[in-house]
Amino acid sequence: MQMDDDIVALATPAGQGAIAVIRCSGPQVIDLADGVFFGKNLKQVAGGTTHYGKIKDDEGNIIDECMATVFQAPRSYTRENAVEISCHGSPFIVQEIIRVLLARGMRLALPGEYTQRAFLNGQLDLSQAEAVADLIASQTREQHRLALTQLRGGVTHEIKSLRKHLLEFASLIELENDFGEEDVAFADRDRLRSLAESVLHIINALKDSFRFGRAIKEGVPVVIVGKPNVGKSTLLNALLGDEKAIVSAIPGTTRDVIEDRISIDGILFRFIDTAGLRQAEDEIEKMGIERSYDQLAKAQLVLHLLEIEENADHLVAEYSSVRKLPDQAPIILLNKIDEFHECHSYDVEEAVSTLTGRTPTIAISAKTGRGLDRLRKEIVANVKSLQTDSGRPIINNLRHYEALDAASESMDRVLRGLKEEIPSDLVAIDIRHALHHLGEITGEISTDDLLGEIFSNFCIGK
Amino acid sequence: MQMDDDIVALATPAGQGAIAVIRCSGPQVIDLADGVFFGKNLKQVAGGTTHYGKIKDDEGNIIDECMATVFQAPRSYTRENAVEISCHGSPFIVQEIIRVLLARGMRLALPGEYTQRAFLNGQLDLSQAEAVADLIASQTREQHRLALTQLRGGVTHEIKSLRKHLLEFASLIELENDFGEEDVAFADRDRLRSLAESVLHIINALKDSFRFGRAIKEGVPVVIVGKPNVGKSTLLNALLGDEKAIVSAIPGTTRDVIEDRISIDGILFRFIDTAGLRQAEDEIEKMGIERSYDQLAKAQLVLHLLEIEENADHLVAEYSSVRKLPDQAPIILLNKIDEFHECHSYDVEEAVSTLTGRTPTIAISAKTGRGLDRLRKEIVANVKSLQTDSGRPIINNLRHYEALDAASESMDRVLRGLKEEIPSDLVAIDIRHALHHLGEITGEISTDDLLGEIFSNFCIGK
Repeated sequence: MQMDDDIVALATPAGQGAIAVIRCSGPQVIDLADGVFFGKNLKQVAGGTTHYGKIKDDEGNIIDECMATVFQAPRSYTRENAVEISCHGSPFIVQEIIRVLLARGMRLALPGEYTQRAFLNGQLDLSQAEAVADLIASQTREQHRLALTQLRGGVTHEIKSLRKHLLEFASLIELENDFGEEDVAFADRDRLRSLAESVLHIINALKDSFRFGRAIKEGVPVVIVGKPNVGKSTLLNALLGDEKAIVSAIPGTTRDVIEDRISIDGILFRFIDTAGLRQAEDEIEKMGIERSYDQLAKAQLVLHLLEIEENADHLVAEYSSVRKLPDQAPIILLNKIDEFHECHSYDVEEAVSTLTGRTPTIAISAKTGRGLDRLRKEIVANVKSLQTDSGRPIINNLRHYEALDAASESMDRVLRGLKEEIPSDLVAIDIRHALHHLGEITGEISTDDLLGEIFSNFCIGK
Repeated sequence: MQMDDDIVALATPAGQGAIAVIRCSGPQVIDLADGVFFGKNLKQVAGGTTHYGKIKDDEGNIIDECMATVFQAPRSYTRENAVEISCHGSPFIVQEIIRVLLARGMRLALPGEYTQRAFLNGQLDLSQAEAVADLIASQTREQHRLALTQLRGGVTHEIKSLRKHLLEFASLIELENDFGEEDVAFADRDRLRSLAESVLHIINALKDSFRFGRAIKEGVPVVIVGKPNVGKSTLLNALLGDEKAIVSAIPGTTRDVIEDRISIDGILFRFIDTAGLRQAEDEIEKMGIERSYDQLAKAQLVLHLLEIEENADHLVAEYSSVRKLPDQAPIILLNKIDEFHECHSYDVEEAVSTLTGRTPTIAISAKTGRGLDRLRKEIVANVKSLQTDSGRPIINNLRHYEALDAASESMDRVLRGLKEEIPSDLVAIDIRHALHHLGEITGEISTDDLLGEIFSNFCIGK
């Protein structure tokens, strides 16, 4: 990718609005924009100032009356010269302004190219650049908080500090290698081992945070298990309806909806349809049942919905008839307490809880909303229990997780090597590997392929 | 509507994008925005400057890293103090920033409230304010050109000049009234008549421009008439496919499309479906046929598609079998010349043209595209022929047309009054009426109801 030319793109969402912003970045953009902008001479104004003027095409026809803000390198997002043109929010006008800027010599920006330039010019590291995309896509308070922490360098600082320790480690080991023939051991083995252990400990803590980070970023997949008419959709609607910060169903028409998304206490929950599971008992085919269990397997959280009755043993039998998957400890819900003797419902709740060993057994009425607050708290607590209290940043990016995993393996080998007293030049190789993998997270180590893969998922204009 | 408080709204289109802009306007907005903005003190920066900072909520949590541009009254769109906050384009972030600004004492702007304030503070007149909405909605070059001319005061200047003449006229007449008992005729009746005639002439010229103005603004309704299989959809697709500046079908899913929109030479054409007309011959009911003619009646331009054959009389008979509406002189198209002896097609074309008296008879092949350039030129010429060459601005707004119509009637009465030598105080009343109607266009005369009606159709944030 060429990085020394002048790029332009619409930076605000497509469509009609009061205003739209067109962003230009590159060494010549102030000159080029000035060629079509009639107002103050943009080449002579101070950086960070905004000016009214008209944008004209080559025949002198006015395209729009605009505000242009000039940024001078390095005081801009990309650290290049930049001009932001704020025009009337008409797709036609945006198209025309971009057309005349292209004619002057700019080219259309590729997806994520502004952020890529910001990265290449040292404004952001790679994990921060990725956080920009997460930030834009964030729909809930927790997604936003994680993305912002990452953008503000939370992960960066942690990784840099790890790399610093490792570099020190590596230099000690490599010094030994230089004097290898003289059989000198500069480095205290115990100190080295303790250093490696502490690095590995931190790497693993970061790795462990990914379960929580991924749940926040992608949303927590939830499956409601239960017989027909036990009130699954009533429950779903009750959760949807009460919640003010409803996250809309994923794109598509109503008919295309494949999951409902609800934000509870700032955390996104994705309710997966288990139509298959519902029919499993009636249908003849094993295949159908297996398919339903496939859906169930996607769930991080399972709500098992039973219709409350006096006989707790019946309820427990029904609960036990559905196969459980490891790591999936369902929350048992005893529904329809509104049609039951309320004073008994707590006894049944306690009995089922005791018999199943599932402490979060909750008697509810999806219809009247009774017990739903307890359910919400339980759901949220369930997710928050994934959060490690290491006080370290939370990893929410699969790429970072994989790099940490690789670094963790290398550090395992380092520790084994130290224990087995293998030659220090071999240990040094594993340390270098760990350094390499950590460097991939922040982009200190990067390839064109990697950058292409990351930035091509950005929107144009970012 | 209260106009001295502080308003806030998203100004860019809703949805995810690289950036979003939140606009604040009102006497206290710089103070209020500064309360949540951590960076330079916005109260101390110069107007028209942009600053980097963090926006925090009341608990001190960072919502986003933003750029804030400060505008000091009267140097802003609304002529009030204004702050524009450019943040990451996440709907969640936008919602949070607006939330904290509301908590500080701003209120959510009503639709069009920024432009309404700009109008009330004398930045724009009413016809210019309306042009802002047209400009944002413009989809074609000609729509854009008309809206921009109006925004830049084209209509305003014309109306102001008319009102100036009329005010002079009125003062002459009213002076007479003051001296009425003395039976003095200050004003030269011939001069008055000539003045009134020239004013009426201009008003009528503006009125006449509305046929063209409306065609540009709303798009030209076109109906393609023809028997089944004569190639109507092939023709439509050929026109659609060749045209680079295709205007997308009006909102809705593919199934909901009720008309195809094509921009040809910067003019928008709306092709109305005539499924009814196609079936009229096969169906038994008169009602069905009438419904088809209702569709036909909506057309400003009719393309009558016939399949070319040797016998011109047959073609003319088929053409004549479809009822013609006044003002609808169809363009006759002889299709499928690719399946015909090309050397004969021009003879047939000429024969049909002579027999029907329709000079724009064009032999085409919707399949190969032959003749379509001629057709496009003819279609565009047909619309442009509506354009009066008065050199005056073009009226494209129904409200302006109705005001001009009312003013025209008043001026008719003025002229009749002068001719019939009725008392000058009665003539003065009609002049005042004409002044009133013209004043409604620019907003020199306006009511809260009128303003409410106009601005409630704007988007929020404009």
